[in-house]
Amino acid sequence: MAEAETPIAARTWMQHASPTSFGFKVAGWLDGVHRAHTRVCALYDAIVLQFGGAVGTLAAFGPRAQSVAEALSSEIGLPLPAIAWHSTRDRIGVVATTLGLLTATLGKIARDLSLLAQSEVDEVREPHVPGRGRSSSMPQKQNPVACAVILSAAIRMPGLVATVLSGMVQEHERALGGWQAEWEVIPQICALAFEALDHTTTVISGLEVRRDRMAANLDITNGLIFAEALTFALAPSVGRRSASELTTRAIRRAAAERRHLRDVIQDDLEIRGKLSKADTDAVFDPHQYLGTASETIQRVADAALTDIAVDLITATPRDQQ
Amino acid sequence: MAEAETPIAARTWMQHASPTSFGFKVAGWLDGVHRAHTRVCALYDAIVLQFGGAVGTLAAFGPRAQSVAEALSSEIGLPLPAIAWHSTRDRIGVVATTLGLLTATLGKIARDLSLLAQSEVDEVREPHVPGRGRSSSMPQKQNPVACAVILSAAIRMPGLVATVLSGMVQEHERALGGWQAEWEVIPQICALAFEALDHTTTVISGLEVRRDRMAANLDITNGLIFAEALTFALAPSVGRRSASELTTRAIRRAAAERRHLRDVIQDDLEIRGKLSKADTDAVFDPHQYLGTASETIQRVADAALTDIAVDLITATPRDQQ
Amino acid sequence: MAEAETPIAARTWMQHASPTSFGFKVAGWLDGVHRAHTRVCALYDAIVLQFGGAVGTLAAFGPRAQSVAEALSSEIGLPLPAIAWHSTRDRIGVVATTLGLLTATLGKIARDLSLLAQSEVDEVREPHVPGRGRSSSMPQKQNPVACAVILSAAIRMPGLVATVLSGMVQEHERALGGWQAEWEVIPQICALAFEALDHTTTVISGLEVRRDRMAANLDITNGLIFAEALTFALAPSVGRRSASELTTRAIRRAAAERRHLRDVIQDDLEIRGKLSKADTDAVFDPHQYLGTASETIQRVADAALTDIAVDLITATPRDQQ
Amino acid sequence: MAEAETPIAARTWMQHASPTSFGFKVAGWLDGVHRAHTRVCALYDAIVLQFGGAVGTLAAFGPRAQSVAEALSSEIGLPLPAIAWHSTRDRIGVVATTLGLLTATLGKIARDLSLLAQSEVDEVREPHVPGRGRSSSMPQKQNPVACAVILSAAIRMPGLVATVLSGMVQEHERALGGWQAEWEVIPQICALAFEALDHTTTVISGLEVRRDRMAANLDITNGLIFAEALTFALAPSVGRRSASELTTRAIRRAAAERRHLRDVIQDDLEIRGKLSKADTDAVFDPHQYLGTASETIQRVADAALTDIAVDLITATPRDQQ
Repeated sequence: MAEAETPIAARTWMQHASPTSFGFKVAGWLDGVHRAHTRVCALYDAIVLQFGGAVGTLAAFGPRAQSVAEALSSEIGLPLPAIAWHSTRDRIGVVATTLGLLTATLGKIARDLSLLAQSEVDEVREPHVPGRGRSSSMPQKQNPVACAVILSAAIRMPGLVATVLSGMVQEHERALGGWQAEWEVIPQICALAFEALDHTTTVISGLEVRRDRMAANLDITNGLIFAEALTFALAPSVGRRSASELTTRAIRRAAAERRHLRDVIQDDLEIRGKLSKADTDAVFDPHQYLGTASETIQRVADAALTDIAVDLITATPRDQQ
Repeated sequence: MAEAETPIAARTWMQHASPTSFGFKVAGWLDGVHRAHTRVCALYDAIVLQFGGAVGTLAAFGPRAQSVAEALSSEIGLPLPAIAWHSTRDRIGVVATTLGLLTATLGKIARDLSLLAQSEVDEVREPHVPGRGRSSSMPQKQNPVACAVILSAAIRMPGLVATVLSGMVQEHERALGGWQAEWEVIPQICALAFEALDHTTTVISGLEVRRDRMAANLDITNGLIFAEALTFALAPSVGRRSASELTTRAIRRAAAERRHLRDVIQDDLEIRGKLSKADTDAVFDPHQYLGTASETIQRVADAALTDIAVDLITATPRDQQ
Repeated sequence: MAEAETPIAARTWMQHASPTSFGFKVAGWLDGVHRAHTRVCALYDAIVLQFGGAVGTLAAFGPRAQSVAEALSSEIGLPLPAIAWHSTRDRIGVVATTLGLLTATLGKIARDLSLLAQSEVDEVREPHVPGRGRSSSMPQKQNPVACAVILSAAIRMPGLVATVLSGMVQEHERALGGWQAEWEVIPQICALAFEALDHTTTVISGLEVRRDRMAANLDITNGLIFAEALTFALAPSVGRRSASELTTRAIRRAAAERRHLRDVIQDDLEIRGKLSKADTDAVFDPHQYLGTASETIQRVADAALTDIAVDLITATPRDQQ
Repeated sequence: MAEAETPIAARTWMQHASPTSFGFKVAGWLDGVHRAHTRVCALYDAIVLQFGGAVGTLAAFGPRAQSVAEALSSEIGLPLPAIAWHSTRDRIGVVATTLGLLTATLGKIARDLSLLAQSEVDEVREPHVPGRGRSSSMPQKQNPVACAVILSAAIRMPGLVATVLSGMVQEHERALGGWQAEWEVIPQICALAFEALDHTTTVISGLEVRRDRMAANLDITNGLIFAEALTFALAPSVGRRSASELTTRAIRRAAAERRHLRDVIQDDLEIRGKLSKADTDAVFDPHQYLGTASETIQRVADAALTDIAVDLITATPRDQQ
């Protein structure tokens, strides 16, 4: 995919930092989704039969209690836990925290997308869906409504997860308040996580990637985004400390004179003496400052896509196993 | 352990329900702690090297980047992840949620203990530590201060976990706000979880268990706690529905006349005709209404103690493996 | 009301402390509700017109903008704010926090009621509603279901309030995520607060207060609940420090010998010499150790009931003012 | 102040919407801060004496109880409340929610500033503080570190406020857990709010406002930001519906042909016939599409600055009043 290799400005603290590639950015998202997927799959282990009678001992079932429990477990297809869990709710808690982590992971993607989609940045756009994301009075608008849904879910989820954790402090054999709090909150958690996942899938699969804008934005700082590259290009010949000083000097001059960093270093004899034309070209070519991005993308994609594919293949309902 | 077999009133919705055993109650706690322990042990997998240079690509390291990363990983003894995780913070999130689940699990134990330790219930007492839990003006008091610490941690933790989840929605290659929020919150989460665990260990290992009070409390409802036992004793001969009606009638009479349920059913010819003396003795003997409690306790204890012991044995620091 | 003067055990750290009166306990609840009521009434000030066109400037309305806004404000009966508040959401935040404080205040009442209603304490019972709070298998049960609803609301509310506060960090003139998060959360907050209030009203107005149980429970510690009273009765003659030492000695002996504190001090010549028969009667008479309870109850009730009544009288809808 | 009148792109859903003025944007911030300030000042009413002895009744003080309380109140300079509030903690809750609202209000400002400070937008910059906000390896960076501190506080605060609300559900006359949870959380809330306020003050007072960038950014959409203005300019002659259709057609053409909207409507005979040259100039002059911005700024500033000034003047410590 051509987009994977496309250089893009990496932003740290919401400021241009150094170049990275769009694929590397997506690999970071995928890596998080991969782990979230693994955790969600592991949730099946948390889903076990809850069957203990009034207080967990199965006393009302007399001597046949254990065989009744086993028959029910087999009938329903849910494993029998070691003990009833009327008021030991960590299994419910794990469902909440796992979906909370998933939603936060998707929220990070939506945050990045919405920042990339800003009018001034315009490096990606949500897929166009007729009639969606329009404004009644401002017909030019194409609002990133899927990102809004995902971000809204990511804002709501932490409070719901906290509620489940608070509610876990349950009284005796059946709680007063903490248990009842689960009733509406767990369905909300599931719905929000699904909604966020659904919208992420839609956005990612139809994302409009604007490579020309990525290239243009790399240039808006008049070459300052290549400051780190310049430092490390100079370091072998003058040492790390001097390289940093030379770079800082050039940067200040570029900023003060509103000139491109490349032009400034052409005028700086001390720097120019250390860098060949090819060296200089390399410093200002974002393709040449991507480090291990390519291999990393491949590694992340291989691992993630293999696991997810395997899970899709093996996702046979329990009763057909 | 004699305490394990001791009958105790199970309370649901903060009301006496049916008898259970103290050991069964503790087994419920242990089962939760067992899973929390397993989750905490699995956290080691979340702890990997974070090393990516300014924006994750290791570009500044040139062609040697991967070998530098591998050498560092080996030197520090932390696995190398598939990709740098500057702003994909689910690993931090899992630390927070796992310790949140642990603390909530301990909070449930502390809630139960503090309820059992109330002056009117008095079935357990925190171990006496000279100078602790005293009141300056009320010298008779022995406050359950360890439970207070655990419950306070359980109240504080959900908000901190929610903060970490909120903070996970991080911008681009390094966040503005969400990352910085982790700095103080993660140490607080670790400290609170440790504090709760430390106090739970102290309380549980020195807990004063008052078996006479457990027996006495089983009797405070004039036999009404055996209502379910009565219903199920009658059911085989009169059917489930009639059994329930007969029991309800007897209960109302016992309550109205402030008499013990056993006395009331002696006067109730319809009931008396269905139950032999031995049947009646069984109904009002909590030891005979514990269902599968004994086997369950054994099963939970075996599983939990084996796993925890194995982990203690194998908890070799990574660099000595 | 006779119940107001009824002595009841005050519990601190979930242990008997000293006597108080039931009315004093209720006055504490009422005092909190009074402030919550004042805050809820003040919410009307937060409800103002939101009308600013696409971005707040009313530009589309041309020169008539201000008069259109004024006409709309007058028509709807909502005050015109100084500026549109598309993304300055503290007014929404105040609705959330105010209802959050109300619900927490009601949660404290429900916690107290549910603790007082425990089988071993049994000092209050929720009003009996046919068919409610019953258990299918345990016909003797009368679960405090209203308290469960209130406590569940109190557990859920903090997470929802936190969500609104998180969502207030809104982008520019209309947010992406934070605004959308309000849509479902604000109605939930209103519904939970109303539900908690509705159930509190029902429980309080029909509460079954069991004065005999309050008296009986004051006696379960063999007089130790009067330890503070004893200390302060001795203090005038022997000094505060010696009084405390004498009391502590008597308490230890009472506990060790399982005797009533009153009997023990009869045997303690040092103490007996300092207290007349009338003094001793006073120490062990909870009615005589209620301090300023009566005046306080009156003061709280007068203030609260006056304010609430005034508000009911003046709660004329705005358009009829 | 010239900046107040400077047109700037209003952004809704993180997309350019219509023009507004920078002063209008700041007025929105100020309006929120004004209300937050009023609420913080009102907190003084929540700070009253807590003095009730062991359980609130002041019983240990005998008949002099009320006069002791009054003397202490007078000595300390804190009003005497109607009743002791050992476990009715809404006053503590109000401190938490008020500072929570303040911090969220400041967080909104920091969010806006950090978005405006992005490399591609560059409309504001944090005041330059030597040695602050620098990156070791990327010397060109000037990170908005004050915004990071404020946003971090805004992320952490909701969880802390939620903790205080959760903790308000306190048991009887002195809680077990909920009270203890306040001890560290309330100081954290105060510290975070102060930190956020301190950094906001610094940033706002030294903010670098880049009016040229605001003008340049208004132009990046090839005139599409004036779509609403165009619609409302056409509406009087062709009706609201046709105006909207004509505008939409022009917008699509401008986007497809990558031409400025102004050029496109010059070619569109249907539109051109409805708008004079002056009309067209007005449509594309952001200064002429600011609606009531100027008056609104003045109104907000007058109200806010008067109130805040009055409070500064009257902020005499209580004991000097």
